[in-house]
Amino acid sequence: MQIGFDLGGTKMLAAVIDADGEIVARNKNQTEGTDNDTVYENIVETIDGALKKADISRKDIEVIGIAVPGPIDAENGVVLHTPNVALHNFPLAPRLSADIGCRVFLENDVNAGLWGEFIAGAGQGFRDVIGIFPGTGIGGGIVLDGRLYRGKGGRAGEIGHITVQSDGRRCGCGNHGCLETVASKTAIARDLALLAMNGQSPVLAEAGATDISLIKSGLIKKALDAGDPGVAEVVEQAARFLGIGMAAMVNIFDPELILLGGGLVEKLGARFAQPAETEMRVRAMPHLVEGVTVTEARLGTDAVIVGAADLARQR
Amino acid sequence: MQIGFDLGGTKMLAAVIDADGEIVARNKNQTEGTDNDTVYENIVETIDGALKKADISRKDIEVIGIAVPGPIDAENGVVLHTPNVALHNFPLAPRLSADIGCRVFLENDVNAGLWGEFIAGAGQGFRDVIGIFPGTGIGGGIVLDGRLYRGKGGRAGEIGHITVQSDGRRCGCGNHGCLETVASKTAIARDLALLAMNGQSPVLAEAGATDISLIKSGLIKKALDAGDPGVAEVVEQAARFLGIGMAAMVNIFDPELILLGGGLVEKLGARFAQPAETEMRVRAMPHLVEGVTVTEARLGTDAVIVGAADLARQR
Repeated sequence: MQIGFDLGGTKMLAAVIDADGEIVARNKNQTEGTDNDTVYENIVETIDGALKKADISRKDIEVIGIAVPGPIDAENGVVLHTPNVALHNFPLAPRLSADIGCRVFLENDVNAGLWGEFIAGAGQGFRDVIGIFPGTGIGGGIVLDGRLYRGKGGRAGEIGHITVQSDGRRCGCGNHGCLETVASKTAIARDLALLAMNGQSPVLAEAGATDISLIKSGLIKKALDAGDPGVAEVVEQAARFLGIGMAAMVNIFDPELILLGGGLVEKLGARFAQPAETEMRVRAMPHLVEGVTVTEARLGTDAVIVGAADLARQR
Repeated sequence: MQIGFDLGGTKMLAAVIDADGEIVARNKNQTEGTDNDTVYENIVETIDGALKKADISRKDIEVIGIAVPGPIDAENGVVLHTPNVALHNFPLAPRLSADIGCRVFLENDVNAGLWGEFIAGAGQGFRDVIGIFPGTGIGGGIVLDGRLYRGKGGRAGEIGHITVQSDGRRCGCGNHGCLETVASKTAIARDLALLAMNGQSPVLAEAGATDISLIKSGLIKKALDAGDPGVAEVVEQAARFLGIGMAAMVNIFDPELILLGGGLVEKLGARFAQPAETEMRVRAMPHLVEGVTVTEARLGTDAVIVGAADLARQR
């Protein structure tokens, strides 16, 4: 048996996965704890809860794969820092390995999610796949020749930080005009907050969405569904920018598949993915884009746990 | 013995290469011929001339690798079209294979050049290398885990056609704001022609360089050396745009090495490469760019023949 673990900013999920890659039990908890030790306790409890639900014990587990939402030292199993979870320079893998008694590996959550889709979801049957996940930021992952590509330090795939507007807005990373600044949920929220302010979106105004931190993908969908003026335009503009980034990926990688996932795509579906694909096909080199498939992720958060477990199993 | 062949728009070069990868003889000709058959004759004569200089015969050759400046069908050895050589849908590899009596493979010239530098030049000792070659356009090549990455159709690496200005100038490829439109020799020439026109560059004016087609890398160097007003600024601006593209490559690939080559880099050296690298280091994500080396190609056109021969040998 394996454990796939999704360490999210608000929730953490442990799943017991059998030798066929099937999820046999899940256990979800709020992500709580304000320092390394309390978060760690929270993680162990969540794993033990999953074992209990599967009616197995710690000794039945061969390997644990943990998807981490932030930079890691994969080799030593250390979580460097996670913006939304209170872990800092914490040797999560060796600690868990000692306590649970099995091998434990960490993986970037975007890579885990792409890998899950690649082996069990929308990416099955392809060999060269670029995953793009627009949410608060824009995550990216790269599968080439059927293998996850990590780069020299395991941090490849920062597709959200390619420059699409050389004189654009400053990005959180320090660069200007990153794809993230124009095509993420945050970029959409920034423009929608103005609509809320200007009385152009009753749905957003009612939700108090002049505060951009309140604008989640679900609320964007609700405002879009309600037909609030301007909302569709803002969403489509962000999608078209995403298409510019997708076209760059096509021109660089000559890939078989562009896989779109993340909160925005899950909630808005084709209303976001379709204008993005259209722009990609206009922008990319014709002989390269011809054979490219664009598809939406289909496993949701299961992709992350399945992928994390499988990548751990492979090591 | 192998033959490496560089099919250039103005010159073609055949080199005889021994088992150690050393060039033992070269033969260069003007690229002449106005249709498939006459260009083909020209190619065969150039190869035979190289054999004569090496004092060997056709039966001593095991394999020929030909670097082609345009799209190819690598599997069938067909040159699809070459903007600067009069070949169209021509089965060059099978024809040569039948006539010379050995295996013959075609390769994109940018890939061949990058591979040559990788095995015998500035790329030795690295595993993940992104090659960027600014000239008339901007070519790109990708070596990952020590292997040339080609993508699904063999056309990966079109780094010159990532969008860096979403509302930028129309590019020859149909897209707007491609890296090529702001960081290539053509982009520099476009701006320098204005300096020639406005009397700000005596060197360019004297060369009749209000005609942008007359502005070659060598002339740009001459105007730069002369200290003509504004020339350094134009060159540096293009270099900084190149740095934006380089930063994107760093963020996407987390590579060990960015290798710069092509006419502009060969002629201008650090005056072009240095501002590009500086901009790259400002733009790329800090934890990714830290360990990245930037270097200039050092084999010149030999990289292409050595790379083409070695890639052919490997097949």
